Amino acid sequence: MSSRVLAADLPRHVGARVRVAGWVHRRRRLKSVTFVVVRDRSGLAQVVLQGAAPPEETVVEVQATVTANPRAPGGVELTSPVVRTLAEAVQPPPFPLYRPEVDASLPTILDHAPVALRHPALRARFALSAAAVRGFRSTLDRLGFTETHTPKIVASATESGANVFGIEYFGRRAYLAQSPQFFKQALVGVFERVYEVGPVFRAEPHDTARHLAQYTSLDAELGFIRDHRDVMAVLREVLAGMAAGLVTVPEEIPEIHFADALKLLGAPPDEPDLAPAHERRLSAWARREHGSEFLFVTGYPMAKRPFYTHPDPARPGYSNSFDLLFRGLELVTGGQRLHRHADYLAVLGDDAPAYRDYLAAFAHGMPPHGGFAIGLERWTARLLGAANVREATLFPRDLHRLTP
Amino acid sequence: MSSRVLAADLPRHVGARVRVAGWVHRRRRLKSVTFVVVRDRSGLAQVVLQGAAPPEETVVEVQATVTANPRAPGGVELTSPVVRTLAEAVQPPPFPLYRPEVDASLPTILDHAPVALRHPALRARFALSAAAVRGFRSTLDRLGFTETHTPKIVASATESGANVFGIEYFGRRAYLAQSPQFFKQALVGVFERVYEVGPVFRAEPHDTARHLAQYTSLDAELGFIRDHRDVMAVLREVLAGMAAGLVTVPEEIPEIHFADALKLLGAPPDEPDLAPAHERRLSAWARREHGSEFLFVTGYPMAKRPFYTHPDPARPGYSNSFDLLFRGLELVTGGQRLHRHADYLAVLGDDAPAYRDYLAAFAHGMPPHGGFAIGLERWTARLLGAANVREATLFPRDLHRLTP
Repeated sequence: MSSRVLAADLPRHVGARVRVAGWVHRRRRLKSVTFVVVRDRSGLAQVVLQGAAPPEETVVEVQATVTANPRAPGGVELTSPVVRTLAEAVQPPPFPLYRPEVDASLPTILDHAPVALRHPALRARFALSAAAVRGFRSTLDRLGFTETHTPKIVASATESGANVFGIEYFGRRAYLAQSPQFFKQALVGVFERVYEVGPVFRAEPHDTARHLAQYTSLDAELGFIRDHRDVMAVLREVLAGMAAGLVTVPEEIPEIHFADALKLLGAPPDEPDLAPAHERRLSAWARREHGSEFLFVTGYPMAKRPFYTHPDPARPGYSNSFDLLFRGLELVTGGQRLHRHADYLAVLGDDAPAYRDYLAAFAHGMPPHGGFAIGLERWTARLLGAANVREATLFPRDLHRLTP
Repeated sequence: MSSRVLAADLPRHVGARVRVAGWVHRRRRLKSVTFVVVRDRSGLAQVVLQGAAPPEETVVEVQATVTANPRAPGGVELTSPVVRTLAEAVQPPPFPLYRPEVDASLPTILDHAPVALRHPALRARFALSAAAVRGFRSTLDRLGFTETHTPKIVASATESGANVFGIEYFGRRAYLAQSPQFFKQALVGVFERVYEVGPVFRAEPHDTARHLAQYTSLDAELGFIRDHRDVMAVLREVLAGMAAGLVTVPEEIPEIHFADALKLLGAPPDEPDLAPAHERRLSAWARREHGSEFLFVTGYPMAKRPFYTHPDPARPGYSNSFDLLFRGLELVTGGQRLHRHADYLAVLGDDAPAYRDYLAAFAHGMPPHGGFAIGLERWTARLLGAANVREATLFPRDLHRLTP
């Protein structure tokens, strides 16, 4: 018997005897025959069986004849089958995997992820996520970026201080990295343009639909920029590569300065940040006025940005940074960073010694640079219209969830 | 002034006025002029300057005329330059970055990684590493694999028990994952074929040239295999994609059974494992007899393999697993796994309850499957002929090293 044929390829084998393999997705018993739908990574195949069929999720190999049948899914079905069980399903699934809709609550799905994710609609989310990462990388590869892998175990919690996980590290105290920020900046000094796809860790004590203890961060950083607009231009390219035809990324993503955004919203001019309701209203405005699902808000007040943020030379108090809003929510944060050693010493003041390793790169000459970070799960959830970021996470980790 | 031109592209601009930017790589003062070599991500450019030049590693922008000069590197040099400093280098590098050889010890390189890695020879290692990862992914994408991202924080240390890092996780105890093994197996049930590129963590108390506390694991797992040979065939494809012309991967990697290897070595037939000296001798044999730098050793005794290893149905006591030796060292471990729920219950016995989440996938039907894991740093070090795996790690983490 020749090699395995995938379900999606069966129409090219009409009349032939083939071998397919997969899971029993569904059984339907009629008077004289049983229709068994077999699921593999490519799709579904209908097998016409005499007599009883094994239960759902049994792993089977089927040798059979490919027969045209316009009423069968895909226009073919498998007849005269010989079915061999490769592995038994000793328990029924926690909810029916064959129904088009997912008939289970989010906790049920997450508790039973190893089997729940087999549902074609759940599985498809993560195929989308994989395509987004592929688009992120291929865009940046094309633009001359180098992929890097940096430590997830760090010596100090200096970047943000709070919300870090502590580790016992050979009798010392260490921490899980909250972002590759410091490393990717140092690596601009080596490669000019770098990216990393990897886990980041946040000991978020918040039990919300948006927070995870681990998520996948898509980080990029580039040198020899004029200002944050060069970073925004690269981000626009990256998003177009990640969208995979599911959403239109305009050639020019509209942009509004933070101060103008407050005016538009009728908010007090000294508001230091945007509230979620503000972000939703700004997104609606961008859709209405510019026909865009994306909006850059630039020039956030320095007071609310991290210490390495580059100020706007023309408007002290405001920064060369941006947030990208997508469908009413902040999706990406980025901007230009400080690059002169003296500027870092000035902003860090007495804290400078604690940042010794970080400052080393700047002591040896660093170009004007900037970057951004995209949360993969948040991006996928937003593309899918999912309310909870856990719906776009294979095995979420949060305040309450450490398994499966 | 038009946009920046990279050093490597200068020969296409002879006669034109251009803008380049980069680091002062080297200064050479002659009687009347100074030759300044500027380094950017593409290569080097020679600038002919009247008068003094800024110190090495200063970040500069140079506007100048591209002039043909057969004696200059690349056949061109930059004349009539206007040099602008973008950022000062306030300290000299820990060792000269412009010498072709790296004139520094490994500890010096690692202590000063943010600047040391700028040395073109050191930087090149990580371009090679990035190319290897790209080859790993593109091969598996072509073969229908799906990329996944799995938790690095896990609830129990069940896979190997020892050498795990403990984490304080919201008042509970958790651990850093030593491998994505259990997750990738479960995901074979979802996608059939999966891979992951990500950090793994080993609390190795060994201070050797081979051990890191964090390394980048290239993991793959595939379902619907006949046995471990289908896994070896995929691995062979992957290696060919990763080799990037630096080493020849034979169409058929030679293979020797563990029992035959012991005979060849004149070792007692009850040896449970291969010693490093054995691996070196077997590699030499493969090169001599088969002209191959790679050798599969198959059929390792079950006693020395993890509990999920599939036995060889024809030779009890031996397994359907393999190691891949490359230039005298073990580079990859892989094999077929158990896939029947009952087989797992049998090997785990009373420990089965501790593996509840892992066993869930098998209770719901799992196909015959197997996989492998490649340590990225080890692969790169071996390709480079580097004696220490730290030479292929940007910022190593080990027993003694937690910074930079």
